[in-house]
Amino acid sequence: MIAQKVLFLVLDGISDRPCEALDGKTPLAAARTPVLDRIAAGGVCGIMDTISPGIRPGSDTSHLALLGYPPQDYYTGRGPLEAEGTGIHMTAGMIGFRCNFATVDENGAVTDRRAGRISGTEPLAEAIRDGVDLSSLGLEFRFNSGVGHRAALALVGEGLGDKVSSNDPKKEGVRPPEIRACTDDPADAKTARACNEFVRQSAEILYHHPLNIQRMKEGLAPANYLLIRGAGKMGEFPQFSERYGLSGSVIAAATLIVGIGKVVGLEHIPVPGATGSVNSDVAAKVRAALAELGRKDFVLMNIKGADEAGHDGNATQKRDFIEVIDAALEPLLDLDETLIVVCADHSTPCPVRDHSADPVPVVIRGPGVRVDRVRRFDEVSCAEGGLHRIRGSDLMPIVMDLINKSHKYGA
Amino acid sequence: MIAQKVLFLVLDGISDRPCEALDGKTPLAAARTPVLDRIAAGGVCGIMDTISPGIRPGSDTSHLALLGYPPQDYYTGRGPLEAEGTGIHMTAGMIGFRCNFATVDENGAVTDRRAGRISGTEPLAEAIRDGVDLSSLGLEFRFNSGVGHRAALALVGEGLGDKVSSNDPKKEGVRPPEIRACTDDPADAKTARACNEFVRQSAEILYHHPLNIQRMKEGLAPANYLLIRGAGKMGEFPQFSERYGLSGSVIAAATLIVGIGKVVGLEHIPVPGATGSVNSDVAAKVRAALAELGRKDFVLMNIKGADEAGHDGNATQKRDFIEVIDAALEPLLDLDETLIVVCADHSTPCPVRDHSADPVPVVIRGPGVRVDRVRRFDEVSCAEGGLHRIRGSDLMPIVMDLINKSHKYGA
Repeated sequence: MIAQKVLFLVLDGISDRPCEALDGKTPLAAARTPVLDRIAAGGVCGIMDTISPGIRPGSDTSHLALLGYPPQDYYTGRGPLEAEGTGIHMTAGMIGFRCNFATVDENGAVTDRRAGRISGTEPLAEAIRDGVDLSSLGLEFRFNSGVGHRAALALVGEGLGDKVSSNDPKKEGVRPPEIRACTDDPADAKTARACNEFVRQSAEILYHHPLNIQRMKEGLAPANYLLIRGAGKMGEFPQFSERYGLSGSVIAAATLIVGIGKVVGLEHIPVPGATGSVNSDVAAKVRAALAELGRKDFVLMNIKGADEAGHDGNATQKRDFIEVIDAALEPLLDLDETLIVVCADHSTPCPVRDHSADPVPVVIRGPGVRVDRVRRFDEVSCAEGGLHRIRGSDLMPIVMDLINKSHKYGA
Repeated sequence: MIAQKVLFLVLDGISDRPCEALDGKTPLAAARTPVLDRIAAGGVCGIMDTISPGIRPGSDTSHLALLGYPPQDYYTGRGPLEAEGTGIHMTAGMIGFRCNFATVDENGAVTDRRAGRISGTEPLAEAIRDGVDLSSLGLEFRFNSGVGHRAALALVGEGLGDKVSSNDPKKEGVRPPEIRACTDDPADAKTARACNEFVRQSAEILYHHPLNIQRMKEGLAPANYLLIRGAGKMGEFPQFSERYGLSGSVIAAATLIVGIGKVVGLEHIPVPGATGSVNSDVAAKVRAALAELGRKDFVLMNIKGADEAGHDGNATQKRDFIEVIDAALEPLLDLDETLIVVCADHSTPCPVRDHSADPVPVVIRGPGVRVDRVRRFDEVSCAEGGLHRIRGSDLMPIVMDLINKSHKYGA
């Protein structure tokens, strides 16, 4: 039998280093994971450098690599991908940015870079869309609210560059600096000018907005300023369906992953209860993935919470959430005719509290796979598997070959 | 002790995926292979991507890679290699083609693309060589018969391109199309003109040939037309003896493999009874290889039958032929001073009925090898070996180093 469908499950940042809090085990090795272990036992395992050995990946560069879009060719910064993830349709040449709603005081100094971790900012975004006008610069813009204090901006027009600085002072008590061009290129100067004008006009609108007036009455930090960063120029992405001949969906809570999926042409399937955190409704995501497999060839599902626990350096929380994930994955064991890939995009070791280049475990299970002797899904066990050590860029070619859709090179 | 001789045994397409007919085993795992197992037990094993992970190789591109001629640099299509394999001496710039003797009816429609699977076509080839004249186009040609209904053509002259279409309609009941240039390059137009003229003149000769008149009397399909395909421009191949300082021979039934061996300068040793099929006299090939090792440094031996069984999807036949191969290899166990490499050029899984990118098993046995713990020559066992996962392009450098003929890089 040849599998016709592919479930590509990325357990974001799940792999780790030995943790003191877990008697020298990694959270993945310390967790009780009967489902992942059964997937490992029924598949071929290995370890994977999503970029290459020793290269510490972002979630964006690693997901691009895993999907077969070499980041050295396709990655142009996080801004355009985040913007796409918030629902802005990015087209080639647009300049994308990540934004924070922030709080400044009467002197213009930043008092809270996240505006009291505000949420529900859509009325603010709507007011900005209605009120800001960049036509004097010959430009249009798109602006969408995101999760919590986050938002995204895109500039639309001719002759825009993406080499500009941020106005995020990265600390509180100081005024946000002007955004400056980082080169002598007039295109970068034009973008910097547009950014400063956008920030100025939006601040005026935010200052008077009823939602902020109400927040101040309640003693909450008003979202009266925008900090913008992560400028990048949107490129051309060959669409997944053309590249692989597969229809596909993306299920992810993280805006960045949604954006990556969408720019390559995967349909985003929102899942209520999916938060991208350790309180996420993983079972709901799994149900959504199974439903998608009924109508699509390829489903990318990203589960983010373990990465967050790694960033927090919380090894026991990470271990516990891995057990939550494992329990939620049980329905996957019935997918006998689907090729299932389980891996991480990078390690997020608790002792590091950030991504590391430690290779990630990977298992491929399904029809045609040469099952090896690995019986446990963890960093050390998978290193003994039949895939050996591969790279992120190897994964899609291997998957395409296992579903008999690879092209023959030669005769 | 340092080995002085190398036997490079390519078991064409021997590796596979789990097969239902063999209770989920691969033919290689299901076969009783005491000789290959002893070679594995006495050597260092691994798995190998002959091109790279997930890339599905042809036999031509994979053999070029295994011999250390990167196909991305040296592969120019199958035609020139097949032509060399039939005995045409190809030199740089010649355009090579594969040909079929075929049958057309009185309306010019193809009624049999293989002329009733004719064999013994050398008289027809001789008549074509004597009768066709391309001098009006300023060109010469070479034409040789091959195995069965097969033949090869080479065009010789200045300013010839290889981007031309085939006249093989790929189905019966229709007239062969004209051969056309695929670009606006006058060189391709010249080749297309020459091909059409060659087909026209050869058809006239074949129509009147006594052998065909006799076949029609006997109710057999006459070989009255040539279908040509696989155009490629012969390149420059650094000779094996210069590249490695090794004299060498090639033992293979498949014209393509013979051609690859010959273009890199290996001497072709024909073996009576070697058919390239599951009825091949493998023992005779092994005797020939042993004899060649007496006078040469390097012997490439290709055994093709398992690939054929894989293309036919016949897992039990493949398993049984692997046992035939294994029995025939017993004399190799006495080669204590020779470095023996056993591998495949690609997998040909019975469930796929074509080549796949699944890595192939590989073992290297002989003086200097670090023997690992693998005791069985099959896909999963070899994956646990000391070579880990290598690429086809790694093999000749490893071999050259084991026979102490590698160059030091640095000081």
